[in-house]
Amino acid sequence: MAKIRPVGDRVVVKPLPKEEVTKSGIVIPDTAKEKPQEGTVIAVGSGRLLDNGDRVPIEVREGDHVLFAKYGGTEFKLDNEEYLVLKESDILAVLS
Amino acid sequence: MAKIRPVGDRVVVKPLPKEEVTKSGIVIPDTAKEKPQEGTVIAVGSGRLLDNGDRVPIEVREGDHVLFAKYGGTEFKLDNEEYLVLKESDILAVLS
Amino acid sequence: MAKIRPVGDRVVVKPLPKEEVTKSGIVIPDTAKEKPQEGTVIAVGSGRLLDNGDRVPIEVREGDHVLFAKYGGTEFKLDNEEYLVLKESDILAVLS
Amino acid sequence: MAKIRPVGDRVVVKPLPKEEVTKSGIVIPDTAKEKPQEGTVIAVGSGRLLDNGDRVPIEVREGDHVLFAKYGGTEFKLDNEEYLVLKESDILAVLS
Amino acid sequence: MAKIRPVGDRVVVKPLPKEEVTKSGIVIPDTAKEKPQEGTVIAVGSGRLLDNGDRVPIEVREGDHVLFAKYGGTEFKLDNEEYLVLKESDILAVLS
Amino acid sequence: MAKIRPVGDRVVVKPLPKEEVTKSGIVIPDTAKEKPQEGTVIAVGSGRLLDNGDRVPIEVREGDHVLFAKYGGTEFKLDNEEYLVLKESDILAVLS
Amino acid sequence: MAKIRPVGDRVVVKPLPKEEVTKSGIVIPDTAKEKPQEGTVIAVGSGRLLDNGDRVPIEVREGDHVLFAKYGGTEFKLDNEEYLVLKESDILAVLS
Repeated sequence: MAKIRPVGDRVVVKPLPKEEVTKSGIVIPDTAKEKPQEGTVIAVGSGRLLDNGDRVPIEVREGDHVLFAKYGGTEFKLDNEEYLVLKESDILAVLS
Repeated sequence: MAKIRPVGDRVVVKPLPKEEVTKSGIVIPDTAKEKPQEGTVIAVGSGRLLDNGDRVPIEVREGDHVLFAKYGGTEFKLDNEEYLVLKESDILAVLS
Repeated sequence: MAKIRPVGDRVVVKPLPKEEVTKSGIVIPDTAKEKPQEGTVIAVGSGRLLDNGDRVPIEVREGDHVLFAKYGGTEFKLDNEEYLVLKESDILAVLS
Repeated sequence: MAKIRPVGDRVVVKPLPKEEVTKSGIVIPDTAKEKPQEGTVIAVGSGRLLDNGDRVPIEVREGDHVLFAKYGGTEFKLDNEEYLVLKESDILAVLS
Repeated sequence: MAKIRPVGDRVVVKPLPKEEVTKSGIVIPDTAKEKPQEGTVIAVGSGRLLDNGDRVPIEVREGDHVLFAKYGGTEFKLDNEEYLVLKESDILAVLS
Repeated sequence: MAKIRPVGDRVVVKPLPKEEVTKSGIVIPDTAKEKPQEGTVIAVGSGRLLDNGDRVPIEVREGDHVLFAKYGGTEFKLDNEEYLVLKESDILAVLS
Repeated sequence: MAKIRPVGDRVVVKPLPKEEVTKSGIVIPDTAKEKPQEGTVIAVGSGRLLDNGDRVPIEVREGDHVLFAKYGGTEFKLDNEEYLVLKESDILAVLS
């Protein structure tokens, strides 16, 4: 499979099909004005660049099961699988 | 129950049903242009990242009874319960 | 009475009924495009967080009689009394 | 007379009636898209708060005769006199 | 003549009547979407305030012949002469 | 061939014809609201200038195969070939 | 000829007539939503002022052949020749 390395403070996520009740019991209510989505982290970037030149490592890790805000991401397909490139700031929480 | 860890300066809150007169006597006037809500803090993130790379711990704690601005949050359900992921800056005050 | 602790650079104010001529003689002209209001400070937050992580104490104190810009606040009722949560930057001046 | 202490980088000004030709000869042309106004500084705040926590004293003083951009101010009456609360950045120049 | 001292990073300019072909040969094409103007610097402020509290002196001097973007300025008349208060950042270039 | 050196935090990319299934298997779904594109890095600028005056080298290199957000770029032709000048922040990921 | 010294992080450019195929082979496709232009650098300002008060010299030099985004510039004529005052950030690349 082609390898993908996100740049800077970006994260690649494999989104779960929407509204599937997952083992963690997450169901996204239709009423929610801005439906968050669930997915698995595939790859993380080098981290956010601060004003002083330091890089801050990304808080989530490969394999983490995450809840994220859908509107910020960019979709693409790799070997016929759908992925999303998100900013770290689009990720709301880690579920375990 | 699935565990949820908010990322960065985010907070997960269990909102109280709206307009319930709570033991703290909080009633949200309908007239208020931007109805704040009440709820209990379920989990807090690692804190806000400053320009110099330091993390500032979140000012509210798990179990705190808080007043927050509704518009900023993202709703989701976990084990059939409704939760909100908010930014720390959406939380207005702690009630005790 | 329930206690209320504003978060960060917020302030809780007990607004005076509008247009009452107060002992300080403040009358808010209707013509003013953005009618400021008067009120008394009930509680102040921990202060504004600076980029370097320091907290700057709030400039006004509990009991101060203040003039503030109405548009920024969030209204709520506590034990049937009306209060406003404001940002420190919404407070224009202290009257004495 | 009630005392008024502006907060932070604010200034209280006693505006001169518009278009009066003042001793300094200032006449505000109607054509000017954004008519500046003239007035006298009544009180100045503690100054602008910098990122490093220092306060920078306000550049104008009580009694200064100033030219200011009207759009930013908030009007109010004190003992039947009209005043304006402005940000320091609304003040364009000092006239002498 | 009344003296005028601009505040902070502001500059007072005596604008040249528009489209006059000046000794420097500057003609402002009508086609230009944002017609710059020419004028002479009358007075400069104390300079721009940086985050660290330092003041940076204004780059142009009294008497400089300058090209500036008109949209940012505020017009006023002093002793029947028309002047403009500009921000330093509205000044494009010095002509000599 | 004319040489091109991007300025600051810019990158010149030779875009791949859209929707070509590439050896890396990237296919950009039409449904994606903001179709990312693929291309090869031709030249990189001196890097992003930080507040403290340091330059941070660009994270991608000449020859890298990248996924980027199309909307930010500026198209131009050089010796009849089409190129794009992008900001480093428009580049989402490196594919290998 | 009148001398022109751009202020701060500005650059004066002599634009090439549009769509001329230049020796460097640059042709600007009509399709490009934001047609970049070519031109020669005539003069550069003192450079960009950083938060710490340092000036960063402009990256391009007098005589450089540059590609720039047209929308940001301000047109003017000097001795019947057309020039543009641009911000350094409007310059995309140097061609040689």
